[in-house]
Amino acid sequence: MASKKNTGKDLGKEFNVVPLKAKKASQKNKFLAHGTIKHIDVTAMPGIVPLVDAMKSMAFSSRDLSRAADIYCRMLNDKKCAVILTLAGSMISSGLKKVIVDMIRNNMVDAIVSTGANIVDQDFFEALGFKHYIAGEELKSGQFDSELREHALDRIYDTLIDEEELRICDETTKQIFDDMEPGAYSSRELVHAMGAYLDSKKGPRGDKNSIIYECYKKGVPIFCPAFSDCSAGFGLVAHAAERGDSPRTIWDGGKDFHEITLIKMNCGDTGIFMLGGGVPKNFTQDIVVCAEVLGMDAPMHKYAIQVTVADVRDGALSSSTLKEASSWGKVDTVYEQMVYSEATLAFPLIAGYALHKNAAKGRKGFRFADLFEMQPA
Amino acid sequence: MASKKNTGKDLGKEFNVVPLKAKKASQKNKFLAHGTIKHIDVTAMPGIVPLVDAMKSMAFSSRDLSRAADIYCRMLNDKKCAVILTLAGSMISSGLKKVIVDMIRNNMVDAIVSTGANIVDQDFFEALGFKHYIAGEELKSGQFDSELREHALDRIYDTLIDEEELRICDETTKQIFDDMEPGAYSSRELVHAMGAYLDSKKGPRGDKNSIIYECYKKGVPIFCPAFSDCSAGFGLVAHAAERGDSPRTIWDGGKDFHEITLIKMNCGDTGIFMLGGGVPKNFTQDIVVCAEVLGMDAPMHKYAIQVTVADVRDGALSSSTLKEASSWGKVDTVYEQMVYSEATLAFPLIAGYALHKNAAKGRKGFRFADLFEMQPA
Amino acid sequence: MASKKNTGKDLGKEFNVVPLKAKKASQKNKFLAHGTIKHIDVTAMPGIVPLVDAMKSMAFSSRDLSRAADIYCRMLNDKKCAVILTLAGSMISSGLKKVIVDMIRNNMVDAIVSTGANIVDQDFFEALGFKHYIAGEELKSGQFDSELREHALDRIYDTLIDEEELRICDETTKQIFDDMEPGAYSSRELVHAMGAYLDSKKGPRGDKNSIIYECYKKGVPIFCPAFSDCSAGFGLVAHAAERGDSPRTIWDGGKDFHEITLIKMNCGDTGIFMLGGGVPKNFTQDIVVCAEVLGMDAPMHKYAIQVTVADVRDGALSSSTLKEASSWGKVDTVYEQMVYSEATLAFPLIAGYALHKNAAKGRKGFRFADLFEMQPA
Amino acid sequence: MASKKNTGKDLGKEFNVVPLKAKKASQKNKFLAHGTIKHIDVTAMPGIVPLVDAMKSMAFSSRDLSRAADIYCRMLNDKKCAVILTLAGSMISSGLKKVIVDMIRNNMVDAIVSTGANIVDQDFFEALGFKHYIAGEELKSGQFDSELREHALDRIYDTLIDEEELRICDETTKQIFDDMEPGAYSSRELVHAMGAYLDSKKGPRGDKNSIIYECYKKGVPIFCPAFSDCSAGFGLVAHAAERGDSPRTIWDGGKDFHEITLIKMNCGDTGIFMLGGGVPKNFTQDIVVCAEVLGMDAPMHKYAIQVTVADVRDGALSSSTLKEASSWGKVDTVYEQMVYSEATLAFPLIAGYALHKNAAKGRKGFRFADLFEMQPA
Repeated sequence: MASKKNTGKDLGKEFNVVPLKAKKASQKNKFLAHGTIKHIDVTAMPGIVPLVDAMKSMAFSSRDLSRAADIYCRMLNDKKCAVILTLAGSMISSGLKKVIVDMIRNNMVDAIVSTGANIVDQDFFEALGFKHYIAGEELKSGQFDSELREHALDRIYDTLIDEEELRICDETTKQIFDDMEPGAYSSRELVHAMGAYLDSKKGPRGDKNSIIYECYKKGVPIFCPAFSDCSAGFGLVAHAAERGDSPRTIWDGGKDFHEITLIKMNCGDTGIFMLGGGVPKNFTQDIVVCAEVLGMDAPMHKYAIQVTVADVRDGALSSSTLKEASSWGKVDTVYEQMVYSEATLAFPLIAGYALHKNAAKGRKGFRFADLFEMQPA
Repeated sequence: MASKKNTGKDLGKEFNVVPLKAKKASQKNKFLAHGTIKHIDVTAMPGIVPLVDAMKSMAFSSRDLSRAADIYCRMLNDKKCAVILTLAGSMISSGLKKVIVDMIRNNMVDAIVSTGANIVDQDFFEALGFKHYIAGEELKSGQFDSELREHALDRIYDTLIDEEELRICDETTKQIFDDMEPGAYSSRELVHAMGAYLDSKKGPRGDKNSIIYECYKKGVPIFCPAFSDCSAGFGLVAHAAERGDSPRTIWDGGKDFHEITLIKMNCGDTGIFMLGGGVPKNFTQDIVVCAEVLGMDAPMHKYAIQVTVADVRDGALSSSTLKEASSWGKVDTVYEQMVYSEATLAFPLIAGYALHKNAAKGRKGFRFADLFEMQPA
Repeated sequence: MASKKNTGKDLGKEFNVVPLKAKKASQKNKFLAHGTIKHIDVTAMPGIVPLVDAMKSMAFSSRDLSRAADIYCRMLNDKKCAVILTLAGSMISSGLKKVIVDMIRNNMVDAIVSTGANIVDQDFFEALGFKHYIAGEELKSGQFDSELREHALDRIYDTLIDEEELRICDETTKQIFDDMEPGAYSSRELVHAMGAYLDSKKGPRGDKNSIIYECYKKGVPIFCPAFSDCSAGFGLVAHAAERGDSPRTIWDGGKDFHEITLIKMNCGDTGIFMLGGGVPKNFTQDIVVCAEVLGMDAPMHKYAIQVTVADVRDGALSSSTLKEASSWGKVDTVYEQMVYSEATLAFPLIAGYALHKNAAKGRKGFRFADLFEMQPA
Repeated sequence: MASKKNTGKDLGKEFNVVPLKAKKASQKNKFLAHGTIKHIDVTAMPGIVPLVDAMKSMAFSSRDLSRAADIYCRMLNDKKCAVILTLAGSMISSGLKKVIVDMIRNNMVDAIVSTGANIVDQDFFEALGFKHYIAGEELKSGQFDSELREHALDRIYDTLIDEEELRICDETTKQIFDDMEPGAYSSRELVHAMGAYLDSKKGPRGDKNSIIYECYKKGVPIFCPAFSDCSAGFGLVAHAAERGDSPRTIWDGGKDFHEITLIKMNCGDTGIFMLGGGVPKNFTQDIVVCAEVLGMDAPMHKYAIQVTVADVRDGALSSSTLKEASSWGKVDTVYEQMVYSEATLAFPLIAGYALHKNAAKGRKGFRFADLFEMQPA
């Protein structure tokens, strides 16, 4: 990796926790006065059931949503079928963390494939005791972003993050990678190590709800197929820069794909519940084909639902229909439904409906994490 | 990675090149009768210049497009500024390959960050001599996807791919990984090896234009931060399944982030030209922060343009404004422009404008690939 | 209007109720087997309140929706403020009729501005005893539209209409116009006559809920600023063709704008609740300016909420922000909120929230219809 | 229309030309420093042809655009087919006026159906010698709209209008209505009178290009089916308020629908070219059914293309597919194409392509305006 010009190796010695341009925290307060994001608790909302039932006989997105909720119930009722949840977009910072945690607790999800941001920058971040802040309406315009920058406040549309806290999250991932036996790990293994870290600290701080931690306890594997594209990526780079040529912790991205394919080969029937599209959607759909490549005529995903506002006409994967996926042999077309909605509106209704309908009654989790032993390649 | 239940290791011995469910190729012909995708050649279209100039005094997307073209010219005129192109969505299969190849040939791009699909499934695929097919209008409805599946034809909205050919692409990546010295590589190194493979075969086949090959010759590094999420992922898994516990080729995803950050630290000023959003956008924007983490107060991206139809109100990164990125300290706000358009309409105009305005006259490529020597970790 | 070539006057003698190309009704049944649209009844769903309350501390569309619901409550609590509801898109056929009827019954709306389709083709149509049908999922693809045409079934995305029934609706509007004293009427007056017609038939048939009828009884005026662009337009043309040069019923579109401006001048403060954009949005926003043209310094709309998925970047009025409307002096910016959602998801939540929060408690309707006496110009 | 409370009749005596809250014009200059909108001249851009031809073998929107351009050429080559152009959204203020004027001049359009804003507020406005201004980038955020209001500057996304000039446009329409023989007129007749007004002033001022004026000379009728929803609506109301109970000029909206249906009955085959959707789209599609209601088995629109970014999943008419229209018997499905693009990008390419391909060579306009004599009902 080296060159004479500038390798960055020396620079890495002094890992920079405090953002260079941040002003004093005291000045940030005016931006943080709107309080913090609270995660919706659908377990307390049985009123979701008649709402979604009524949507069945309406039109447009409401009927689609009702049908998606019905398909999710079918996945859960189908005892031989494993459920994979995929996450793209800022789902945790937007207040959906507890919905997902409740799904895990109630054996309603068996594997998660996510962008790194949701899992590390947002869920792990909150498990360390930090919060996401509600941004004032006027910040959405972008006219105040330079000022936010001066106070080291990062904006996600209508939400703020304290960058100094995010740097501590980065640093913590580095410490976890520092403490691991050098070797090549899947993101599942690295996230598992983050769960173990939380466990060693007596569980998550803050509101005590953490996807990583809940999955750690319930044997639900989490894959981040673009794992370096998040806070953990900073940790990986800082770890590598510090180690130089010495053995180190490596994220082995191919192992991710291998492991999740083994899960597909192990369980047979699968249903996928997708929030947004992106790499998590594509990666998860592809495991059917990868199983085939490895010589097993694995069945297509039997059930598939997706919540997205992406437009099919841009030709991108995020918006590609689930019917299109069937041409690739990835998704069966009997039980598939796309719901055209921003996720914070539709997801609590779909998950809450299945929860209050007891669709997972008697269902046991697949505990796919137990398939693997923690061992570097 | 092992468990007693089902490791897939034995299965991997018989790598499956032919899709299991494919019917005879002869039956596919009715679907392939519309011909193949041809890549637009903007070098032959000087008429783009007056068109884009006129847009400067119009409104809405046309004015935005004209401003984006102007900013791209500024990037290229700014001799100290390196240009990074990011690609998400199916850009190559949609006919944009030659535009990108011409940009590389004319020193108009210094690094590429892309989804794996664009680089491997589409560009490398075509370099092996295969083509993308034009799908008939009626196929867009999705009503014929089951039938396409029977003929092993994969659909991307209005385009078809012969899955048997795609399996050969998968298999070729496996062979390349088989032939490499075992070790941990960045996606840049793995794609470089694909360029070397093409070189060993006397260059790309088909229309002789290949992004991978052109970058190989011009020292332009290509990063795929979700590299296992494409045809090469199948190759990595098949390679790993075959090797079992023996040393193997590993995709070291953290190394990707490290290397591109070193590029940022090496060059200083940067401009980014983004088609779509997704992981490539996020990954590229993050390198400014990563440089800071490594102790260098690197400047924000000085110029940034993005072509996308993603809607900012869904809160996802793909649609997040470039102003928002400035709150993260990633993008400066003086020269930034989003263009609301599907890429096949806007990209040829922006790139063609800069080309015919000779914006890169006298510009030399940065040859960032030369910063690195090919060596596994 | 006449010319020697072809006036259509003779043709109009034989008003054509039965669509020319319709096949026998018995053949339609397979398409109508999915049942009929049922209108959601939010009065039975108190569970909407905790759901919307939780959204207040989330992000993206959920927070926007919660804020819109809060603003709607403020409108209703502000006793001097009249509430105008605008409707674009197929809101009635999609199952939202009863939500609107319940708003009228509970004094939660004082005037309605709508596309003609919602009021005539859909609400009046159902009041005549007809139903909208649920279309099968496969019909959405458009591949069966020619077949639907053969059976005289009209499709609205995922909903079907029996065109023979719609022709009876057309014919009924003609009869109503036939029975009126010749003269020039606003659409408010013509819709009022439709309410009187229903009253003479002892109220609406079917599920007994009708916006036209409820408004007729509660003195809530309904304006359709593009009134000829719906089933009533067919009635107007057939009526005019039959009358020839004799005096006839005329829709006086300028009178619409005059009357609604007088309402604004009469009441002072106004709040607007918009579903979709289009002509109803523009027309309603414009009354502030029109009052000013008539010499009264009328206050801007004090409250404004809109539910839409239109994208601001296309520059169209439907998607134009409520802030932009303030530059025109139409909408004040303190209490305005756009909600990015398809209406069937967001509207029941916003309306149901205000209903169960008793936001209109003690509120009396403005009975604006009483301002006008029924008299042709 | 009267009531004792407040009729507005007295107020109307003093028609208010100057916006009440406007500050001195001198203060506006900082906002108007970016110059004025210039209309793109595709007649000078033969380079559009190879660009659109190349798009034929690409994917996504580019292929759709190329197909739409081809269908437009077919419409024009089909000598028995009349072409109807529909306009929604701010097409004129965005710089597309001259494209439309050139289409009229070259016999490439036989009737226009439009929102009132395009025809009156924008085209007639410019014909009076006024201009649209380019807004600075920072104004798009909406943060300066209150300040714009203080200077009586109206914003359309990235474009500004001087409201004092717009009031003069309102006032001019009132004068035209004042000068007409009292009676009930279609919008076609009222717009024709505006053309006559321009003719009496020796043609349009400013850049000398005007849709109204060109149509006046070429016998191309213009319909605005929501005619009161624009600057002319202010004129109609002010005219009516002044006249009180005396005879006056009335916009007879039903007559619009009658007249355009007579055009359909007169000509037989029709092709429609739609920019945006809204009332113009629906109104124009409906004339096929209306002809049937009047007893003629008129053929469906033989060709149909639409440029829009509206999303089909919201169930609205603007986004409804042209296939869906065929279920209503409105549009034939052989030659129909939707293009997913903001209009300023796609429309110059489609129109310019047909122009430079000489698709209308030898074509004569239908001069539908000659069918009608100017006579009030």
